[in-house]
Amino acid sequence: MDILIKNVTALVRTGAGKYETKTTDIAVESGRIVDIRSGIDPAGAKKVIDGSFKLAIPGLINCHTHVYMTCLRSLADDLPFTEWLFDRIMPNEDKITPGDAYYSSLLGCTEMLRTGTTAFLEMHMFEGAIARAALKAGIRCVLSRGLTGTLTADGGMRRLEEAQREMRDFSGEELLGFAFGPHAIYTTDAGYIKHIAELARKNDVLLHIHLSESLTEMNDCIKKNGCTPVEYLDKLGVFENRVIAAHCANVTDNDIRILADRKVNVALNIRSNMKLGNGIPPVAKLFDAGINLCLGTDSAASNNSLDLFNELAAVSLITKGVERSSVKITAGQALDMATYNGAKALGLESGELAAGKNADIVLMDLYGHAFVPRNDLVSSLAYSANGSETDTVIVNGKIVVKNSKIVLKGMRKLADRVSKITEKFEVNAK
Amino acid sequence: MDILIKNVTALVRTGAGKYETKTTDIAVESGRIVDIRSGIDPAGAKKVIDGSFKLAIPGLINCHTHVYMTCLRSLADDLPFTEWLFDRIMPNEDKITPGDAYYSSLLGCTEMLRTGTTAFLEMHMFEGAIARAALKAGIRCVLSRGLTGTLTADGGMRRLEEAQREMRDFSGEELLGFAFGPHAIYTTDAGYIKHIAELARKNDVLLHIHLSESLTEMNDCIKKNGCTPVEYLDKLGVFENRVIAAHCANVTDNDIRILADRKVNVALNIRSNMKLGNGIPPVAKLFDAGINLCLGTDSAASNNSLDLFNELAAVSLITKGVERSSVKITAGQALDMATYNGAKALGLESGELAAGKNADIVLMDLYGHAFVPRNDLVSSLAYSANGSETDTVIVNGKIVVKNSKIVLKGMRKLADRVSKITEKFEVNAK
Repeated sequence: MDILIKNVTALVRTGAGKYETKTTDIAVESGRIVDIRSGIDPAGAKKVIDGSFKLAIPGLINCHTHVYMTCLRSLADDLPFTEWLFDRIMPNEDKITPGDAYYSSLLGCTEMLRTGTTAFLEMHMFEGAIARAALKAGIRCVLSRGLTGTLTADGGMRRLEEAQREMRDFSGEELLGFAFGPHAIYTTDAGYIKHIAELARKNDVLLHIHLSESLTEMNDCIKKNGCTPVEYLDKLGVFENRVIAAHCANVTDNDIRILADRKVNVALNIRSNMKLGNGIPPVAKLFDAGINLCLGTDSAASNNSLDLFNELAAVSLITKGVERSSVKITAGQALDMATYNGAKALGLESGELAAGKNADIVLMDLYGHAFVPRNDLVSSLAYSANGSETDTVIVNGKIVVKNSKIVLKGMRKLADRVSKITEKFEVNAK
Repeated sequence: MDILIKNVTALVRTGAGKYETKTTDIAVESGRIVDIRSGIDPAGAKKVIDGSFKLAIPGLINCHTHVYMTCLRSLADDLPFTEWLFDRIMPNEDKITPGDAYYSSLLGCTEMLRTGTTAFLEMHMFEGAIARAALKAGIRCVLSRGLTGTLTADGGMRRLEEAQREMRDFSGEELLGFAFGPHAIYTTDAGYIKHIAELARKNDVLLHIHLSESLTEMNDCIKKNGCTPVEYLDKLGVFENRVIAAHCANVTDNDIRILADRKVNVALNIRSNMKLGNGIPPVAKLFDAGINLCLGTDSAASNNSLDLFNELAAVSLITKGVERSSVKITAGQALDMATYNGAKALGLESGELAAGKNADIVLMDLYGHAFVPRNDLVSSLAYSANGSETDTVIVNGKIVVKNSKIVLKGMRKLADRVSKITEKFEVNAK
């Protein structure tokens, strides 16, 4: 046995949106949870962790981000969307080198680990650099090279070849998984998307796409294709694939029916949607339709945080506010989205504390203000915690955060290295 | 000079919603900021703090809370409002003794200090216990005994006498201020409210009231009085006083006009409103009307956190989401609400880093992920920080948080003491 966590308060999932806590031991071997019960003999354990006054939860799963963009945090805020994207983010993003992307991603990975996230789904550029950063930090990652263009133009095939090469290059890595990532309907065409979808089906690889993020995307699609973005992908047959669609902030009732019927996983990015003025996703309707909802932060350029506890609170509180309901979404339902549902969407054997699952475990300090007094720890996770209570993080059976500190050496140097990247940026002049 | 903070990055307010940062020194003497400029001679300083890689901000001001209820955190969530209040919160609140209230308040005060809040406005019961807790923790506090009943019944006059006695008992305390706190229109009557308002005017004391929190309050008032709660108070002449109204989550356009005309300060409690299903306050309209908006957490029983950084992010992000606008409310405008506007509402000489103001100063760690890289620190304060970056807190010239730790001894013992209170509670059985 590699690690034994003794006498810990463990969060156990008992059903959809239902959790209870119990004092127990957790045994970890070869990257997996092998046993959860009281009284496990510590004699055979290489390492014993005292779990007293710690809450063990499954590591959170961030189902949509662009981690290489962490160096763009706070660069351009409170601006109209088009000015934000085309005048500020994209010109500066252009200046990021693969070396910059590595350090920027490493900073983002440590931010996620430090706040209790143990796996993330990435989309966009610099996948090789990001893969190396994730491995260095020790975080689980599903990578999807952002695919834009067409079958014959705009670098579409080059990007697809890069994506496939990266899948081969890193195929032996336990911590890494891959998805095909056609970027969005407005940066591709029908032939390219269909080709990628077929390739993904043939190889049984997840498909990851931005979908119905803005009203502009919706209105442009209706003008061009006579249907909504969701209907458009449905017509192309994309939803025959295993799909995770990021955003779905602007969808019709019929879109929601299609997403539910086709079992599309939806990654909500609530704070990013709000911050960019894209509205608030219709969470209650998506939930009631039975869609597998999970949570993403989007990038530090739009959020501006990679702490998934923010999204965990947001999905419950904001839905309650919008719906004028104090009962929907519950803390347990939100917690499902941040853990169990995310694992299901990404095909990871994580997201739950149970024997046989990946040992992706977060120990939180039960003396943090969020958890005192301890009337209901599930509520405290959803409404009071903010990730700063994270004490120990184990990913794939390895300790990567200890006493609230990233195990990785040289954090200050890393921060300085990333700050250096920004010297070439044109910053928000407000 | 008592304290000199050397070479700190200081947040300076340059106009309404406008901030810039500059590297400087800050000198503190007799509880006040006496000088802000580079190159202050450290020779005369009793204590020198190295401000390198620290961001100095004015301490946040929590303009509506019930700190004695911290022991009720997470006790009863995800329930219908009436069940939450009448079946869960009130029966358990009844079991709180003044001794419990002291420790529960002390825990709440340390939570606020630890997350960068240096002053708060309190309403309800146990004001004596709360006063002692605030003094022990070293936080600034404006107290208002919750006044319910009438001039002749239901203990109305007894409570008013208690309120006045406490004002006298603690009148010499620099850290304490007082407000008259008629609880709400639905727990008082017209004669009682008018009497309190006259008393407050005569003594030039702030008046603090819950107002238009729920649709029920609105509908009941219309049925009973033929007007909205805001119109009702206006007719009673209450708005001739200096008033801070908590909530205003459900107000008409005419209400907003009245609040603006009468210069009523409004304390938004966005997370609490959402969590209890009371909707989302019309922040953009209130802001556009020119109302002095400030932020409150409400209690840990409804929020469930006393970390005002949550509210700082919420007021900007949620307004952007609701309004589908990426430019309203800006980070700087939200920061005004959390600091400058709160001080204005409470009549405190705090809320800004400037010579002559109270030395209520928070130093945040610029190596926290929220602030790396440092493209725009105002944005990072509003959208990335969560209070966990708080390194040092000075209130009235005294250091109360040092190296991210509460100076007060025995924090674990305090947490255990508060947890003990909950043994007599009936907890959420979900």
